[in-house]
Amino acid sequence: MTIPNNEVFSVDKASLVRRLKLHLPPHCLLVDEEDLRPYECDGLTAYRQLPLAVCLPENEGQVIDVLRACHQLGVPVVARGAGTGLSGGAMPHARGVVLSLARFNRILRVDPLARLAVVQPGVRNLAVSEAAAPHGLYYAPDPSSQIACTLGGNVAENSGGVHCLKYGLTVHNVLRIRVVSIEGEVFEIGSEAPDAPGYDLLALLIGSEGMLGVVTEVTVKLVPKPELAQVVMASFNDVAKAGEAVAAIIAAGIIPAGLEMMDKPATAAVEPFVKAGYDLNAEAILLCESDGTPEEVVEEISLVTEVLTRAGASHISVSQSEAERLRFWAGRKAAFPAVGRITPDYYCMDGTIPRKRLAEMLSAIAGMEKKYGLRCANVFHAGDGNLHPLIMYDAAKPGEWERAEAFGAEILELSVALGGSITGEHGVGVEKINQMCVQYTTPELEAFHRVKAAFDEGGLLNPGKAVPSLHRCAEYGRMHVHRGDLKFPELERF
Amino acid sequence: MTIPNNEVFSVDKASLVRRLKLHLPPHCLLVDEEDLRPYECDGLTAYRQLPLAVCLPENEGQVIDVLRACHQLGVPVVARGAGTGLSGGAMPHARGVVLSLARFNRILRVDPLARLAVVQPGVRNLAVSEAAAPHGLYYAPDPSSQIACTLGGNVAENSGGVHCLKYGLTVHNVLRIRVVSIEGEVFEIGSEAPDAPGYDLLALLIGSEGMLGVVTEVTVKLVPKPELAQVVMASFNDVAKAGEAVAAIIAAGIIPAGLEMMDKPATAAVEPFVKAGYDLNAEAILLCESDGTPEEVVEEISLVTEVLTRAGASHISVSQSEAERLRFWAGRKAAFPAVGRITPDYYCMDGTIPRKRLAEMLSAIAGMEKKYGLRCANVFHAGDGNLHPLIMYDAAKPGEWERAEAFGAEILELSVALGGSITGEHGVGVEKINQMCVQYTTPELEAFHRVKAAFDEGGLLNPGKAVPSLHRCAEYGRMHVHRGDLKFPELERF
Repeated sequence: MTIPNNEVFSVDKASLVRRLKLHLPPHCLLVDEEDLRPYECDGLTAYRQLPLAVCLPENEGQVIDVLRACHQLGVPVVARGAGTGLSGGAMPHARGVVLSLARFNRILRVDPLARLAVVQPGVRNLAVSEAAAPHGLYYAPDPSSQIACTLGGNVAENSGGVHCLKYGLTVHNVLRIRVVSIEGEVFEIGSEAPDAPGYDLLALLIGSEGMLGVVTEVTVKLVPKPELAQVVMASFNDVAKAGEAVAAIIAAGIIPAGLEMMDKPATAAVEPFVKAGYDLNAEAILLCESDGTPEEVVEEISLVTEVLTRAGASHISVSQSEAERLRFWAGRKAAFPAVGRITPDYYCMDGTIPRKRLAEMLSAIAGMEKKYGLRCANVFHAGDGNLHPLIMYDAAKPGEWERAEAFGAEILELSVALGGSITGEHGVGVEKINQMCVQYTTPELEAFHRVKAAFDEGGLLNPGKAVPSLHRCAEYGRMHVHRGDLKFPELERF
Repeated sequence: MTIPNNEVFSVDKASLVRRLKLHLPPHCLLVDEEDLRPYECDGLTAYRQLPLAVCLPENEGQVIDVLRACHQLGVPVVARGAGTGLSGGAMPHARGVVLSLARFNRILRVDPLARLAVVQPGVRNLAVSEAAAPHGLYYAPDPSSQIACTLGGNVAENSGGVHCLKYGLTVHNVLRIRVVSIEGEVFEIGSEAPDAPGYDLLALLIGSEGMLGVVTEVTVKLVPKPELAQVVMASFNDVAKAGEAVAAIIAAGIIPAGLEMMDKPATAAVEPFVKAGYDLNAEAILLCESDGTPEEVVEEISLVTEVLTRAGASHISVSQSEAERLRFWAGRKAAFPAVGRITPDYYCMDGTIPRKRLAEMLSAIAGMEKKYGLRCANVFHAGDGNLHPLIMYDAAKPGEWERAEAFGAEILELSVALGGSITGEHGVGVEKINQMCVQYTTPELEAFHRVKAAFDEGGLLNPGKAVPSLHRCAEYGRMHVHRGDLKFPELERF
């Protein structure tokens, strides 16, 4: 895949820096290569690029000034939180600036009665829950990177986490945002009340990957910490059976607080690293969490155990203490670094499929491992049908990254064919931009471009990310068939 | 308020009818005044207007043809479901057509394993739950009009209902929609998977009041019917105390399946009509429903009872049978017609405020009753802070409607001032279009207009509804102050 660097953006660095210095004090502006280097990529390290400058504004006035300046000069702007994103959404533009919100790191208000917190976008996800803890409350979405990732990034990517099956994605947990447009206009979207009139711009902006505006304030919902949580761990001697057990739990009317699956290569990688107590003989394990009042948990755990037994679990154990529960989860949460210990590099995918197709997808991935000559460990937010296959490769060996990338693309395109989606929670960024051509038709992509133009006519906010141009899809389509009816427009509109 | 009828739409009826006859068989096209009369208004009967024609397409091809024809001729299109809306969203345009989806009344698929149903937009809300009932499932959003209102209208208005506190609004219960643009392009938005890449156009279109596209298919989530539901009815001798009790329930970590409040004028109207068993000595009653497994319900009801007692309830009773539970609700659900029996006309408002401001709002409404010389019965979705004050008036008495309208406007504007919103679930339509100027700033309204233009550049879909022009706000602003900083733009953009 080539890195997008549209040649229409042609400001020279000296003029840009001269202008930015009018608006930012020296400690808020980085321009030397050694200072820019830490910003060259986000969590998708396969793609790297230096920006012309990095701005680190300290207040909203400076954000407005930087955006107005870039708008006037025609300079691309890539907003950035903690840079933990996995799809390259915060990868710089070679002719643009990176707008880091790192210094917007204050929690402005915690209101336990209204059950909400008002925070700046550079506040870490976990810090919100820590601030709410004295009131018995927490912020529900919990991406695995929650120690480091920020609310602004969570809003940009509509982040999920192991508990989003029950508690929802970021879009379900944000009440209001304050946004600066590329023209430097400020608007507030959403309200503390349950609904707001007019078009639902709040949901539109959440998950828009920095393409529509820059968030300067986020009001989030807080929810009460459950009195008790317990985890059931079940072993299966057949991966397909584990997939069917997931469907059976949901079909039984249970919405667990978390429902995760790991296959044998994943548990084999994790166990020596974390000693979570996983069954290494099992082909797959399921972790199913119940939370609520002690009575609710007891009842739900008993029902889950019954369903799992009927679904053919070979072994079942239930966490008997909070320490044991955390140990069960520690393995799951450390799965990515654990796989990183047994392979020089890995490529994490993020397709989503209807739950009932899990077994089918697993068997197809096994076939792809042979086809591409690469191993794959499978870690799933199974309850959501959200897959995180970790394709193992060695970037030092010629051709391996290309094979890994093709392997990943095939998983994503099969996800679409099975009735799913190319991403569950990691965003499109630069990584999955070609697969957007597979997921959407030309009229659908045109609708996206028109919405983009409504907010950012010049295409200055994060260009080249999230939504492919029709030209790119036409190029990609020459190699692929798209729902059987890909059209090849003569001209690219955006 | 004047009815919007922009003179830029100037097609003559004969040419329009000639063109529509090319696409629709005679039984799908109404053009005579006596046939058009039933379509002159929706549930907001204070505003009436005949369209040039009513189209009743029977398939998506006809919808596409009608929209293309109207697009080419520059004719406004007002989509219509059952016409139960309360804000005039389906009121016809004098120079346009009404596009009724009444014949799109088939349930296409119920999938109990995936927990979803695919339905046409003319299917009644309750019919979805009836079709799902054999599988122990139902569709959660339950507007009081659910016997009659359709899914298409629910999508257009983002409808709620007494259970939306726990189960969410329409936007939280729709997975995918199929939409035809004003240019006749079809696109599918959303997916059966939990999230979809690209901008969240699904949430954008839900609640967009027919301004962005015409929905031809809706995929909804189904949820399991709870094993048990029970209602606590609590009496209060002080309205403010009842308001505080609502906040206390939520603060105790309880999310009831429903949490409703009625004041004395409302119960006095209802009781002789429905014989629900309401306490007629109480200044206000609360209805609080718990649902789930029997164990969960027992525990929650006991906690609710405790909180209500502490909050000063003068009397508490708990439904002891399903029949009694339904009787408690029957009174609430019949509140509007019951008020209709004691007054020639009533005007139902729909502001939303933070729960903790309930008591303040009630006391302000009492003041307004004196100011405008009109009585008001208050029925609230209290858990959401969603107010439905019913202002009683007599349209036959000169000046009463104008006073009622001013009374309503004052309630809505106070809702905004208290940190809330001018509508919870009934939409803006023509009714609250002036109050949109109070809720939003100029840049925010401009963002709405740009989004509108991205879907419907010519402004043909439901013109004059939902989002006011900047010109209208400037006119309205001359009489009102807007967050202290209303600007008066020179020119109207739309």
